[in-house]
This record gives sequence, C-alpha cells and structure tokens, in this order.
Amino acid sequence: MIINTIEQIKDLTRGAVFLGTGGGGDPYVGQLLLQQEIRKGKYVKVIKAKDLADDAQVVSIAGIGAPSVLVEHLQSKDTCRQLLTKMEKQLGRKVNAIIPAEIGGLNSIIPMAVAAQVGLPVVDADGMGRAFPHLEMVTFSVYGSTAAPVCIANELGDSVIIEKTTSNRKVEDLARGICANLGAMVYSALYPMLGAEVKVKAVHDTLSYCLEIGRGIRLAREQLSNPIDGIMNILEQPKLDRHARILFEGKVVDINRETRDGWHWASVLMIPLNGKDDRFELEIQNEYLKAKLNGKTTCLVPDLITTLDLDTCEPLTAEALKYGQRLRIIGTAATPIMRRPECLAVFGPIGFGMSEEFIPLEDL
Amino acid sequence: MIINTIEQIKDLTRGAVFLGTGGGGDPYVGQLLLQQEIRKGKYVKVIKAKDLADDAQVVSIAGIGAPSVLVEHLQSKDTCRQLLTKMEKQLGRKVNAIIPAEIGGLNSIIPMAVAAQVGLPVVDADGMGRAFPHLEMVTFSVYGSTAAPVCIANELGDSVIIEKTTSNRKVEDLARGICANLGAMVYSALYPMLGAEVKVKAVHDTLSYCLEIGRGIRLAREQLSNPIDGIMNILEQPKLDRHARILFEGKVVDINRETRDGWHWASVLMIPLNGKDDRFELEIQNEYLKAKLNGKTTCLVPDLITTLDLDTCEPLTAEALKYGQRLRIIGTAATPIMRRPECLAVFGPIGFGMSEEFIPLEDL
Repeated sequence: MIINTIEQIKDLTRGAVFLGTGGGGDPYVGQLLLQQEIRKGKYVKVIKAKDLADDAQVVSIAGIGAPSVLVEHLQSKDTCRQLLTKMEKQLGRKVNAIIPAEIGGLNSIIPMAVAAQVGLPVVDADGMGRAFPHLEMVTFSVYGSTAAPVCIANELGDSVIIEKTTSNRKVEDLARGICANLGAMVYSALYPMLGAEVKVKAVHDTLSYCLEIGRGIRLAREQLSNPIDGIMNILEQPKLDRHARILFEGKVVDINRETRDGWHWASVLMIPLNGKDDRFELEIQNEYLKAKLNGKTTCLVPDLITTLDLDTCEPLTAEALKYGQRLRIIGTAATPIMRRPECLAVFGPIGFGMSEEFIPLEDL
Repeated sequence: MIINTIEQIKDLTRGAVFLGTGGGGDPYVGQLLLQQEIRKGKYVKVIKAKDLADDAQVVSIAGIGAPSVLVEHLQSKDTCRQLLTKMEKQLGRKVNAIIPAEIGGLNSIIPMAVAAQVGLPVVDADGMGRAFPHLEMVTFSVYGSTAAPVCIANELGDSVIIEKTTSNRKVEDLARGICANLGAMVYSALYPMLGAEVKVKAVHDTLSYCLEIGRGIRLAREQLSNPIDGIMNILEQPKLDRHARILFEGKVVDINRETRDGWHWASVLMIPLNGKDDRFELEIQNEYLKAKLNGKTTCLVPDLITTLDLDTCEPLTAEALKYGQRLRIIGTAATPIMRRPECLAVFGPIGFGMSEEFIPLEDL
C-alpha cells in the first residue's frame, strides 16, 4: 500500500485519534509533517510484517512527552532523521524498515513522516493496536525485545543514548526523566528488532485498520443520515475477531482533572439526553481505562474506549472533553494477542493498579 | 610522584575530607578500592598538569549521587574501567590521563583507583580545589569545556550516554535524573579535554595539596601536644597565596537537617566551651557554604569551611555532625583562580542563591 494523498493522511489521523482511546497525543503535528513530505512528492510505502526479510533491521520512532506540551513544542524535521542515523551507528548496520510502537495518537503518524522523508518502508503493525502511556507497554517488550539502545533527542540537538538496562521499565523511567529535563517533549528511536521478531511479536495490520476506521468515519458522515451505523459495521465483524459496542450516548456533566506524577488523571461523569436516571463514568490515566454504567464496568483496558462527537462522529482526545459536550462512547475489543495473560500482566487492569480482573467487552 | 603505600592513601583520604568542606561524599569507598589495587602491587603515577602533552586526551571519572546512599550501594571494580572504554569509543581515541573533577570527598580517590587499575597517570589538578554539588561547578566548565559526552553506568551494567547538550547545567540536570533512576549512585566519565586545555583551565597542584594536608594532620597529631598549630602552619602561607583562620571552637547545640530536591540542607548552631555568649552558625547545602559569628559572616563559599574534631583534628563530613560534638572550625582561602569574577558567577554565593557578595576570608 502507498500513502501519498492528503485525504489518506487525514483519514489516518482520524483513525489514530480513535485508536488513541483518549490519549497518545494529538496526531496533528505528525499530520503536518507528513503532509509536508507528500506535498514535496514523497510517499510512504506500507509493507506487511509477513513480507519482511527475517534479518531485516526494524526500528520504532516515537515521541515521548506530555501531550499538552506537544503542540507548543514543535520538532525540527531533522530531529527524527538524525535519530535514525544515531541508531544505525549504535547497531552498526542500516535500518531497513520503521514500525510504529503505538498506532494510537501521535506515534502512528510520526514514523510515517520520517519514513517518507528518508524513503524507508513502514510496517503495517505496531506494539499495542492502540495507545498506552509507558514505553514498556508493548507486545515487543512482553515477548522479550529490549527497548535499548534508545536514542533520544530534541529539536535543540540535545542528545542522550540509553545504551543498556536490566529492564524496559527502567528505560521508561529514564526516558521520562530525560524528557522532563529536555523540554517535556523529545523524540526517540527505540526497540531495534529483526524482521523475524516483528513477525511473531507485533500486533499485525493495525496501520490498515487505522486507515479503515478513519476512512469509514469520513464516508459514513458523507453518505449516511446516521453515520454511527457505518462505523459500527467496520468495528463489529465477529468473523475477523472484531467486537464493538455503543457503551453510552449522553452529555458530560462533570470532569475532574489532575496532572500528577507526569500523568493526566481524570474522571468524567455523563448522563443520558432522554432524561433517564443513568450515570455513566469514564476513568482516565492519559488514556481511557474503564467505563462504568450505573457502577457496573462495561469496558476495561486493554479493550478500547473511544469518545465520538455525537453528531459528527469525530473522535476526541481526553484533553478535548468539556462540560456539556454531547458524546457517543464506543467500546472496541483489543486484538486477541493483546488479551493473552502475559500481555494483560503488563497492560491489563493490574498494570494500572486496578484490582479488577480483565473481562472481554463482549462478555460484559 | 608515585602513590603506592597504604599510609599515603589514608593521608589522601583525610585530606579529601578536609577539602570536601563537609560534602563531596565520604571517600571511604574510594579508599578501599585504591587499597585493593595497591595491595596487588599496582600504583598511581601522579603527573603535573604542565607536563601533559598539549594533545594528550584527558578525562574525568566521578561518582554522581547521594552521599548517604554511597556506602550502601557499592560499585563493581569494573564499572569505572568500562566507563573509560565507553568514553574512548565516543572520542575515537585512547585516553592518556585521568583528572579528578573535584579534589574534595569521594571524587578525589575514585579517579586514582581507576588509574591504578588501568595503568594511566593522574593529573595533579582538579576543577575546583574543593567539593561542589553540581557537575557544572568546575573551572573546566567556566572556561568553556563541555562535560559531554558523559558516559554513565551503575554496577548492574545499566548504561546511559549524554552525547551532546546546549549547556553543562543541562548535563547536570540530566545526570541527576538518570542517577535517581539507576539507584541513586552512579559513576561517570566526563569532561574530555586536551592537555593544552587542562593547563589553562584546571586548578593546579591540588592532589599534592590534599596529600600535604592529610599527612600534616597525621604528623601534627603524632608529634605535637597541640596539633592544630601544625595544621595552621600548612594552611596559612601567604607567600603561596594560602590564607586560613580558626573561625570557631565550641560545641554543637542544634542541628536542623532536611533532604529536599536531592540536596542535604542543614544549619548547625554552636556555642563556645568557655561560657561566653557567642553564637556560631554554619549553613549547609551538601557542602558548608557560610559561617557566621554572632550574625556576622566570617567565611563564604567558594572559600573553604572545614569541621575538625576538637581533640584529634580529624576532618568530619556534614553528615557526621551530632549534637554535643566538640569541633574546631577552619576557614581556608580558595585558590586565586576560584575567586575570579567568572568563577564566582557560577559557584560564588550567587550560584547558591545568596544575595551576599563574596568577600575573601582574609578581609572578613
């Protein structure tokens, strides 16, 4: 697949906000960078993970930082290209393909902007099929790949290399501290893997899925009087292991926000528009983690919770939620690999300090 | 000069506590590492800065961390040797000599232990002639050398490289955060400089001075009924630009300690033994920064304040101070280079947030 039109990029960006489940950082900056490349005649070649050579060198490129700082603190278009060169120096070989670490939010689009710039293919896969706040919360890490060496830089040319650590959680802690000292938004090259590893460790076909969702929302809006039907047709396809539910429709009546320990913590309370006595709650730690209707859990991490504008079906990030907003909340099943016990141990409810056990959306 | 006896090492360690002005970290761990090398028949060759070849590659080796953690969190003897190898890889050339960044506290002895291990000479000079808490508080930095590349590691093999930054203060902030995430005590190779730079930027002959003070205290204790006279004869030699004063003799009646923002903040109140109504105060931010007698400043950073046990004249670190302790407080002039305006701007009173202007000890 080739990405070379502005419409594709806008669809991708819309899909990335959907899969960001409220977090992942606004992909707008990535969209601008990618559009700039496309307008210069560049393009992104997307390849399937299964088509990678077993000894191909694959690397992730990702922004690390506070979503709120992101749009104020732009990167130079050279930052990520230089990171790729630094990584090649660390590895002692050329990089053959770029893989997104997360397909939700900013980090779905940034790798494509870099790939277009340097002419490398992007793998149609990622490490989570959504967005998560920690860099060790990826299937790559669950299945034994090391994040290090991690090359980190900002647009001033400040540059740090995490060469080696005893755990990927330690890389996360180090990177978070380095980020705080370099302006709260940095870019990184990380998780160097071989093609053979990517094939077994990655969540496959997530870039196509992201584009399909973004395009589906656009087309449903253009063609249908009730666009949500079109969207649910994409999300709910049990034969493809896809499950989805409309969790709630209503308006926001209360939001509690707190920025603490580098996280965006929030809870959102909603009531229905029809005057019924229901109470719907969302719990947020950067991403939406849990949805509750009248105190009963209806969707739980790593399954995806997404907030859509009730009229336009445009996906919204958690920072964008406001009092009085009319929203439709969608629950989408995580891909099967994400629900395996070894994955749930890292980014299931327990990974976020909840005592609740994971129950699949379709069983709730 | 060759360092190859246990007595020399003990003298050096005593001198390093004196020049640590209360901080710098207890050099005991360094002493053990150095003794281990000497017992294996190794030795340290100390060379004068002026004898360095102009194109010699000189590097500092230093511990970074919380003095309180230091003695609990031992390093492997390979940690610093590997740092040297990493630095050589960064520089693309062999290191020819090691220079202490600070001659006070732990970081005077660690470079010698590494030098003995790998057979490199140590330069008889450092970047401050005492101890300071920040890694940009060195004459190397004041006169334009960059701390980066900085290679950082702990005994687990966790390894980070600060490759490049826009300021040495930023390196300090990054290193402090990395240290906190790697167990609160790490080791580093930093400030790669050429021989020609060291000659003009370093504080000269401070390793000899450290040994002279340590030996002088030992000999005075062995030979004199009042050892302090012997010590003051070393410290007060106006022809060599050396000035010193006994600031106070008395006992500790109050200590306020606080560990905040990674610093050891404290104030110490003392009264005389002779029943007089004097009040003597010490202000501490890791190191002793200011001495006041009855509210009037009598010694001020970067001049050196040292606490000695009243009877044995053994120098004590600030962590070792206790209620009821009988102490003699000595003020010693910093070397002339340390009192230049460009140096005072970084580590004079203003560098520690004080509004008071620096006045030399001998004029107070």
